[in-house]
Amino acid sequence: MKPPPHLLRLTESLRKLPGIGQKSAERFAFEMLSWEPHHLEEMGHLIATVKKNIVFCNTCGALMEESCSFCEDPNRDPSLLCVVASAKEIFLIEETHTFKGLYHVLGTLLSPLKGKGPEDLAIDRLQTRLQGVNELILALEPTLEGDATALYLKKELANNPLRITRLALGIPMGSSLDYLDPGTLSLALDNRLTY
Amino acid sequence: MKPPPHLLRLTESLRKLPGIGQKSAERFAFEMLSWEPHHLEEMGHLIATVKKNIVFCNTCGALMEESCSFCEDPNRDPSLLCVVASAKEIFLIEETHTFKGLYHVLGTLLSPLKGKGPEDLAIDRLQTRLQGVNELILALEPTLEGDATALYLKKELANNPLRITRLALGIPMGSSLDYLDPGTLSLALDNRLTY
Repeated sequence: MKPPPHLLRLTESLRKLPGIGQKSAERFAFEMLSWEPHHLEEMGHLIATVKKNIVFCNTCGALMEESCSFCEDPNRDPSLLCVVASAKEIFLIEETHTFKGLYHVLGTLLSPLKGKGPEDLAIDRLQTRLQGVNELILALEPTLEGDATALYLKKELANNPLRITRLALGIPMGSSLDYLDPGTLSLALDNRLTY
Repeated sequence: MKPPPHLLRLTESLRKLPGIGQKSAERFAFEMLSWEPHHLEEMGHLIATVKKNIVFCNTCGALMEESCSFCEDPNRDPSLLCVVASAKEIFLIEETHTFKGLYHVLGTLLSPLKGKGPEDLAIDRLQTRLQGVNELILALEPTLEGDATALYLKKELANNPLRITRLALGIPMGSSLDYLDPGTLSLALDNRLTY
C-alpha cells in the first residue's frame, strides 16, 4: 500500500527543489493536505507562471518585470561594473546599499565538473559593455570555481585599460577566531588593514 | 531595489512549507527560474489540485483517491485496530509489512499549546468502530503529547472489553548505546526481552 498516485507525483516533483530529499518532500506534500485550498492554488499559480512573469535583462542579465531597474536608472554610475555569477547575488549586494554602479551577470562560474567552460561565460557580451567602464569589480565567491573564473576574466581582459578588483578576503563581521579556518585567518593577516 | 513582486510573492508562499525560512524560500524561488517551464507547470498544477484529487476516508481517515484501500480490503483483519495521529503515519506502518489490521486516524494529538483538547480527538467516531475489535494498538509517538493522548484514550475506553496496547519502547535498531539518552536506556532495561 503506497500513498495515492497524485501524492507520489507531488512528492517526486518537490524533490527537484535544492537540498530537498525524499523525506522532506513527503513532509511538504502531507503538510499541503492541511492547507486551505486557496493557499494551494496561489502557490501553484505562482510556481507555474514564474517564468512568464519574470525575465532577464538582455543587457546586464538582472531579473526584471517590465524594465531593468539598473540599466534604466540614470542615477547609477556606468563607470563601475560589478560582475556576479547569478542574478540572485545582485539582491544580496543591493542590500548593502554600498554599490551604485551597474551589474553584469555571468550566468555561471567555470566548472569542468558541471560541464561549464569558458564559452558559457559569454565573455563577448561582457567585452561589449566595457566602453566607459573604469573599474570592474569581480564579486565572485572565493571557491575553486569562483577563483578560476576570476583568474580567467582577469587574463582575458588584460588588454583593456581598466582597474580590475575583487571582494576583500578576511574574517566575517561578528565571527569568533576560534572557529575560523586557517586559510581565512592567514589571508586576513596578509591583507591586514591599517587601524 | 528588491526582487520583482512575483518573486517576492512566490518566496512568501514557499515560506509556508514546514521548516522553510526566508533564505531557503529565496533559494527555491531563484532555483525555479532555471527550470524548464513544463516542470514549473507540472509542480504548480500538482500543488493547486492536491486537495481535489485526494480525500480522506470517512470511516478510518486514511488518504484515498477513489475508495479506501484499507476499509474496503476483505483481506485485512477487522479485529485489530491501529490508532495513529495522522494519515501520514499509516504509510510508515505499511512499509513494515507487519500489520494487517485496520487503521483509525485521530487527526491530532492532545496539545494544549496548539489549542487541541479532547474534543478534537473525536472519540465518538472511534467508539463507533470498536464493535468486533479485539485489540486496539495505540501507535502514538512517545512524546508528552503522544503519551497524554494515549493515556486519555486508555481511560476513556476502559469500559470496552478490549486489549489496548502501544508500540514497544526501547533502543532503535543499529543504534549505539553511547548516543542513547538515559530515559530510553532505562525503559529498554525495564522492558527487556527474554533472549
